Amino acid sequence: MTTAVTDRLAVRGTRAEVLRRAERRLGELLAHERARWSGVDERGAVPVDTVTSLVDAGGKRLRPAFCVTGYLAAGGDPEDPMVADAASGIELVHTGALLHDDVLDASDTRRGAPAAHVRHAAVHAERGWRGESRRYGEGVALISGVLAMLYADRLTRGLPPAAREVWGEMVTEIQIGQHLDVAVAAEGVIAPELSRWIAICKSGRYSITRPLLLGAALAGRPDLTSAFEEYGECLGLAFQLRDDLIGAFGDSTVAGKPVGLDLEQHKMTLLLAEAAERDQQVRCLVNRPEWDTAALLDLLDESRTRIEERIDALVERAGVALDQAAIEPVWREELSEMALEVAYRNR
Amino acid sequence: MTTAVTDRLAVRGTRAEVLRRAERRLGELLAHERARWSGVDERGAVPVDTVTSLVDAGGKRLRPAFCVTGYLAAGGDPEDPMVADAASGIELVHTGALLHDDVLDASDTRRGAPAAHVRHAAVHAERGWRGESRRYGEGVALISGVLAMLYADRLTRGLPPAAREVWGEMVTEIQIGQHLDVAVAAEGVIAPELSRWIAICKSGRYSITRPLLLGAALAGRPDLTSAFEEYGECLGLAFQLRDDLIGAFGDSTVAGKPVGLDLEQHKMTLLLAEAAERDQQVRCLVNRPEWDTAALLDLLDESRTRIEERIDALVERAGVALDQAAIEPVWREELSEMALEVAYRNR
Repeated sequence: MTTAVTDRLAVRGTRAEVLRRAERRLGELLAHERARWSGVDERGAVPVDTVTSLVDAGGKRLRPAFCVTGYLAAGGDPEDPMVADAASGIELVHTGALLHDDVLDASDTRRGAPAAHVRHAAVHAERGWRGESRRYGEGVALISGVLAMLYADRLTRGLPPAAREVWGEMVTEIQIGQHLDVAVAAEGVIAPELSRWIAICKSGRYSITRPLLLGAALAGRPDLTSAFEEYGECLGLAFQLRDDLIGAFGDSTVAGKPVGLDLEQHKMTLLLAEAAERDQQVRCLVNRPEWDTAALLDLLDESRTRIEERIDALVERAGVALDQAAIEPVWREELSEMALEVAYRNR
Repeated sequence: MTTAVTDRLAVRGTRAEVLRRAERRLGELLAHERARWSGVDERGAVPVDTVTSLVDAGGKRLRPAFCVTGYLAAGGDPEDPMVADAASGIELVHTGALLHDDVLDASDTRRGAPAAHVRHAAVHAERGWRGESRRYGEGVALISGVLAMLYADRLTRGLPPAAREVWGEMVTEIQIGQHLDVAVAAEGVIAPELSRWIAICKSGRYSITRPLLLGAALAGRPDLTSAFEEYGECLGLAFQLRDDLIGAFGDSTVAGKPVGLDLEQHKMTLLLAEAAERDQQVRCLVNRPEWDTAALLDLLDESRTRIEERIDALVERAGVALDQAAIEPVWREELSEMALEVAYRNR
């Protein structure tokens, strides 16, 4: 089979169609669950609505895109409904993780709107309900996050064993990464290696590598594992460094979430961990019990050129990894383009 | 086939062996995960340890017992490893729900020890870690609860579709029930019908009916559904009324959790909802913005004979339901005995 006949527009059209199907699947499941639980009591639909409003608030749909791209690049049949199930499931896992993340980080804004726990705490306070507003708001976010993950599980229940294996790894890793992230921040641990592992595990791996591997597993192509892994790990690091740059220097209205919070919360981001490893001054500053946020920001700002070069190098290595993958050139180009989008985005 | 040859000791021995296998499965999974994540960093094992210590703290193992009993009563093969997987999975779901429940209810004690969120908040405070101790403690409980549910999912991944169907219903229902419980308490809703639904959904159904149905589904016996459902719903109500009685009048050292908290937190328990439905005085008291806990306790105390009679009637109806089930008499006797244990326990 040659690739001359398939041009980039055609493969993009196919991918867009699968992604639309995934969105539809997601919308149908949530609408069905809404109808079901509001039939018991209108309050029963609140956790479903909380999931739905975060899903509907947009988001980059990065994970479904990598899952479907991995699948199609691996030669999977676009008509097979399983890939849409997996792609929508992965978005729901992400939704659940965000709902919990904002509680764990006490982050007030998400996708340009008040975070779910903040919104529900406000409703509680406004209506003068009993008990503590914070506990109620965080409770709704907790339950809604779990619900999103259960729905994700339901969507992916029928996946073949190899794909479920990837799935199980991914969802466990997110939780452990989440805990390590919280613990390292609380203890103020300066451990660049550990911070790198957390960044890989919590963000890069679950945003890029696992979705790609899930797609390859669905298409029955374990031979793509090592190339996709290499591409994913490099791009995952680039993704996380960009995320940290946006978190430190971005425009919060563009990012849709608060900027500068990581440093305020003593969060040992990958960006900071790498800077501390390289720069004695940064190391001194982060070892103090109270952080001088302004001084740290200045030092990070000075090293921005170096960080951009590091991102460039990671994107290049991701490209080299793709060259080893036995996939059609048109998909190699697609994945290269996605690497650029991920590494050089502004939100 | 006659039942003369199988005496009660023999079936109990079989069930105990399956339950031991379920415990072993649970222990092995947790030990394996502990080793795996502590290999990354010792802190990575904290959520696994949090799950393990609650599992090891005992608990009644009610749900695994009903699952295995339902399975064996339905004629399932005791050697099939699937039933041990399902039984251990159900205990893990319960563990996760308890970890979250204690955060949602701000309950400080569980199984006679400080609740997980309290214990971890104390560690945070003692070691002078950064950030808020409460957020850290509740964060660990949140993540650990999610992890328990993910492990439960992993254990039950291989179940046949009919059993997964029951499973999916169960885990979703727990979350919606949990939210309704929180919401009704916050809003101070006096709605006996809704409170009854919550009690059935959140406790009775997931403690008794769903485990039994899961067992029957594993054994390929959908014909037992309606009898098990009727038995489970009646016994579930009795279970919940007993739970509420223990919560109101029990001995906290025996119960292993705080007593009197439900009323203090304006929780519309099934016990209270039924009392409010019957008794004008109770209705008046619960409609006030602040509850007179002592007066409510007195009124509930006066109606204890009536509540005990209601429990007796529910246990009897559960027994009648069993008479309709096409199961061996020896299992009918076992399930009758379990009904007595559940309905007349003191913890």
